[in-house]
Amino acid sequence: MTRARDLGLACGRGKPGKLNSIADVPGVTVGHATLSDGAIQTGVTAIRPHGGNLFREKLVASSVVLNGFGKSIGLVQVAELGTLETPILLTNTLSVGSCATALIRRAIAENPDIGRETSTVNPVVMECNDGFLNDIQALKISEADARAALDTAREDFAVGAVGAGRGMSCFGFKGGIGSASRKLKLDGEKFHLGVLSLCNFGRAGDLTLPDGSKVAPPADQDDKGSVIIVMATDIPLEERQIRRVIARAGVGLARVGSFWGHGSGDIALGFSTANRVSHDEKSDLIPRRVLNESRIDRLFEAMAETTHESVLDALAAAEAVTGRDGNFRPRLADTLGEKA
Amino acid sequence: MTRARDLGLACGRGKPGKLNSIADVPGVTVGHATLSDGAIQTGVTAIRPHGGNLFREKLVASSVVLNGFGKSIGLVQVAELGTLETPILLTNTLSVGSCATALIRRAIAENPDIGRETSTVNPVVMECNDGFLNDIQALKISEADARAALDTAREDFAVGAVGAGRGMSCFGFKGGIGSASRKLKLDGEKFHLGVLSLCNFGRAGDLTLPDGSKVAPPADQDDKGSVIIVMATDIPLEERQIRRVIARAGVGLARVGSFWGHGSGDIALGFSTANRVSHDEKSDLIPRRVLNESRIDRLFEAMAETTHESVLDALAAAEAVTGRDGNFRPRLADTLGEKA
Amino acid sequence: MTRARDLGLACGRGKPGKLNSIADVPGVTVGHATLSDGAIQTGVTAIRPHGGNLFREKLVASSVVLNGFGKSIGLVQVAELGTLETPILLTNTLSVGSCATALIRRAIAENPDIGRETSTVNPVVMECNDGFLNDIQALKISEADARAALDTAREDFAVGAVGAGRGMSCFGFKGGIGSASRKLKLDGEKFHLGVLSLCNFGRAGDLTLPDGSKVAPPADQDDKGSVIIVMATDIPLEERQIRRVIARAGVGLARVGSFWGHGSGDIALGFSTANRVSHDEKSDLIPRRVLNESRIDRLFEAMAETTHESVLDALAAAEAVTGRDGNFRPRLADTLGEKA
Amino acid sequence: MTRARDLGLACGRGKPGKLNSIADVPGVTVGHATLSDGAIQTGVTAIRPHGGNLFREKLVASSVVLNGFGKSIGLVQVAELGTLETPILLTNTLSVGSCATALIRRAIAENPDIGRETSTVNPVVMECNDGFLNDIQALKISEADARAALDTAREDFAVGAVGAGRGMSCFGFKGGIGSASRKLKLDGEKFHLGVLSLCNFGRAGDLTLPDGSKVAPPADQDDKGSVIIVMATDIPLEERQIRRVIARAGVGLARVGSFWGHGSGDIALGFSTANRVSHDEKSDLIPRRVLNESRIDRLFEAMAETTHESVLDALAAAEAVTGRDGNFRPRLADTLGEKA
Repeated sequence: MTRARDLGLACGRGKPGKLNSIADVPGVTVGHATLSDGAIQTGVTAIRPHGGNLFREKLVASSVVLNGFGKSIGLVQVAELGTLETPILLTNTLSVGSCATALIRRAIAENPDIGRETSTVNPVVMECNDGFLNDIQALKISEADARAALDTAREDFAVGAVGAGRGMSCFGFKGGIGSASRKLKLDGEKFHLGVLSLCNFGRAGDLTLPDGSKVAPPADQDDKGSVIIVMATDIPLEERQIRRVIARAGVGLARVGSFWGHGSGDIALGFSTANRVSHDEKSDLIPRRVLNESRIDRLFEAMAETTHESVLDALAAAEAVTGRDGNFRPRLADTLGEKA
Repeated sequence: MTRARDLGLACGRGKPGKLNSIADVPGVTVGHATLSDGAIQTGVTAIRPHGGNLFREKLVASSVVLNGFGKSIGLVQVAELGTLETPILLTNTLSVGSCATALIRRAIAENPDIGRETSTVNPVVMECNDGFLNDIQALKISEADARAALDTAREDFAVGAVGAGRGMSCFGFKGGIGSASRKLKLDGEKFHLGVLSLCNFGRAGDLTLPDGSKVAPPADQDDKGSVIIVMATDIPLEERQIRRVIARAGVGLARVGSFWGHGSGDIALGFSTANRVSHDEKSDLIPRRVLNESRIDRLFEAMAETTHESVLDALAAAEAVTGRDGNFRPRLADTLGEKA
Repeated sequence: MTRARDLGLACGRGKPGKLNSIADVPGVTVGHATLSDGAIQTGVTAIRPHGGNLFREKLVASSVVLNGFGKSIGLVQVAELGTLETPILLTNTLSVGSCATALIRRAIAENPDIGRETSTVNPVVMECNDGFLNDIQALKISEADARAALDTAREDFAVGAVGAGRGMSCFGFKGGIGSASRKLKLDGEKFHLGVLSLCNFGRAGDLTLPDGSKVAPPADQDDKGSVIIVMATDIPLEERQIRRVIARAGVGLARVGSFWGHGSGDIALGFSTANRVSHDEKSDLIPRRVLNESRIDRLFEAMAETTHESVLDALAAAEAVTGRDGNFRPRLADTLGEKA
Repeated sequence: MTRARDLGLACGRGKPGKLNSIADVPGVTVGHATLSDGAIQTGVTAIRPHGGNLFREKLVASSVVLNGFGKSIGLVQVAELGTLETPILLTNTLSVGSCATALIRRAIAENPDIGRETSTVNPVVMECNDGFLNDIQALKISEADARAALDTAREDFAVGAVGAGRGMSCFGFKGGIGSASRKLKLDGEKFHLGVLSLCNFGRAGDLTLPDGSKVAPPADQDDKGSVIIVMATDIPLEERQIRRVIARAGVGLARVGSFWGHGSGDIALGFSTANRVSHDEKSDLIPRRVLNESRIDRLFEAMAETTHESVLDALAAAEAVTGRDGNFRPRLADTLGEKA
């Protein structure tokens, strides 16, 4: 698996974690279900923020919509309550319903009081449109695919043309799943900020490498499609701070060549694994740790860098794919090789 | 079918349309699929903004989240683009996925270019938690139920314990679907503003009648559950104006006794049937009509009144229902009769 | 000084604090500078959240715009950083500039590093239009008036036609400054939530008393003018929680008869005196206490009640005033007396 | 006066208007009042959207806060009503009050019914902190300076270290006022989109030129300070469309090297000179033209490019300045020369 740094595409000044992925944040794992069969080139990617029962032990979270041409579910409640209570599923645009239902069934199985003795559950599913390579009208993603992605979540997950990234396109190249992380030190403690992105955006010819050069693919593409950015950190943050940090996903996207196009659903979601929020909290007042706001530039910069690098990571790792009606997306590395 | 005004529960100073419902707005129809069988007391309600192909002829729309403890789908794109491109489905909290998928399939059937030659479609589904009366964990709503609600849409639709309202509770009474409308005259033309609400909110004892008196049910209920308010008008409005108007749903809810409780997803969505937005528009610049902003108080007042009255309408029309585990919600009219 | 409860106008079920005012929150004081001379009927009201150096020891804060026909200053930074770093000044619409400059000069005097070794300061000033009774074009408020309001802040402050409230009108009656508070117990500790409102809104005939009856003044008034609601509490809250709580100001306003009119700047600002945010914080990570979110309905209800009662308090306390061009606003108590 | 293109610093693919400035939008003019005397290095810049009475003939407008560490006035009402009714003043952070008062007095002089027979006026003033070069505590900006900036507004205005830009710093270089424009054709008609920016942001070493190279100044600077971006266009847009367009200011800032730092007030305001909104409109319903939304990418790209180039324009044009305590900011061209 070729990563961005294998192609010399490192971004910024920060130091990556051991895996240079979202799984450098302790407890975070990622799983994929990939469907690749002729005109069906699609899948599901699951991000599990911790290994426990997320409905019982929620995490502080927030989301930012950079451009809302998108069909996610769950963001209204995240904005109001500032918490995440299911794993995050990524998939194609028309399969959000199935994935949401899969998350609901799993939450009920783990928490039989949902909708009876306690409140309902808020599934979070985000999407991009893989209709160029995938026969998206076939609605091939099943609840079983969602479960498979959840069940195979691990630290050393694959990036590239896998899971929800299977059918995605990016700047006219094959896109998909990318990831990156940065190490940060606060009060002498070591922390990580990691990003996973589902990359399906960018107009052909606009892709900008870290040295400022532009790379064009053989084929054409408008800035349509969307990009989803998921940020995880073990730094204790409150909802407002997460919102400020993940807004800087827009910086990384701009630097890699996007202007957050009209037809693109550019959405960032972030969570902190510090500060769990117990569903069954007994106390009226609860202790938290938050970041000294005057230190937040370090996280802003890490967010911009990891978003930027995660897009290049998706492009570096994704193999060429031929899908629906013979539609084809080439591998970035092949074009870079010719260029070099 | 008992309406709010049959119980003397008129709100405000405005004059209702002929049906005193959202269907007074020309072209708007409403359909229900109702499931009532022992522990299953739930359903789907469909609001069709016009009789044509809504994906091809979108309407200007906006939404407002008064309290976001809710799991709707589709609001992100409505906020960004200010348009509605599918009918609106209302259902129970855990069935949003099935209803979204049903809307997608229908849109594809009518528009085979979706996700291929043109963009994907943004289904709008909103929900309340009917888990007190309904076995919500059973996930009994199917795509067929959603289709049935869409197919039976009509002007003279039922209100009360029907469709998505079948299992809902309101101030400790049986809640459900209510509606109301007001006539307005602008530049000599006649217009309507109508509201349909799905009422599943309100703490027992807080229900306030138009004369200021309070009515308590025999049984108890916290302010949990949610309320969805859908506004339709044939007055030409831009997205920002719709947003301002539907925010006044909060006024109607406050007056009927709610304080927009923590556990309630209180969400308003509105659309104007004037100013259609063609998916296939050829011109770069397009003419519109909008409201002279200094006239908007008339719409604010109509929105507050119709929201208020639609809640009382749901309570007036809803029959008593016994559901899951023998849980029971009484009819408001029975308590009012005792009181009188 | 006649208070709302002296006229029997108590709202809701909660128990007020000792003063039934915002000053029941320990440390909060209020001062007024009142200008009353013929056509000049205006002033400044200062709310001091604590007795120390607020720039050095900021408080967690948030604001909500119910209807933004208003000219406040300072809310952009409050929304971003979630902190308040000056006292809050209320005044007439055209005097926001002078009051902001007065806050800046005072902050610089207390903190000579502002704009040199450290960042600049964000003054918070909010306003209503008292142009009916006051010659607002005269711009009579000086920086000295702002200083006088700050210097006279005390716990047992006056309400009614004083300070910024001097020239305000409300439902066709004389409006002005009102206040109310509620006691709350959390984890066995005693807390308060208090509100101060500057009342200059409401259409004549729409005023609704707690028993549901309506009261009309002899004279007419549109729903123009604005209302500012300031909430203080010693309950530890994060910014998002404050935002959720103060949004319920809209509930209180709706119940007293407003529909948040087009021409009204209806803005709420809230702060918590718990959780001070040190400007000179040395640690990267800092401890906080926050509210268990599932207890927040208690605060929602207290916010709705105190907003409602504070409006009636302003109306109860305000004497009749004749101002510019002989314009006159009567005292509510006189009409209530006739009614009784 | 050296412009960005004189140094070879053109951005993007679009073609600039004749002046390559915001004044390419017909009717838009800009004036400066510059104070330069030892420790006083500050000023006011006025943007006049049209030559008439703006209170009587308002323009459709919107604003976006990229990072809200800023003290502007007027944005709350712009967001609610979607209109601009005064010229826009830019100045230093602590002089917003004086400038707002100056705008108010001028509006009253032109419209004696303000605050009497009609509503009050909403002044729009935005700011950056020039405290490094300027003795900002001196509060030297007077209402007369604001009037002077308004009175000298012209099409062929100066850029660089003038007006509000006099004391500003950018990436460790001398910053200030920059501008750029792009031509666009819609339905065969010619239009312009122009930007004026007040540049006072960016960490030393982060400045990125269009070819991707980085330029560091001799001296150091954190990413503090702020940037204000004003967009004008004669393309007919509704408020929501303006909001979407000006959000892309963030793209231009990211590409020039900013990550929208914590201590920076990064705010964009935009208006369309098409679609005037008459204060005295008699009709209830009014005609408008709006953009076909599917064409909006052209404006997004123009907004990103002009923001980017306007920052480089400010850097290109600004002469070196020595101010308070001998603080010094060098000229970019001098460093570029050494580099070349």
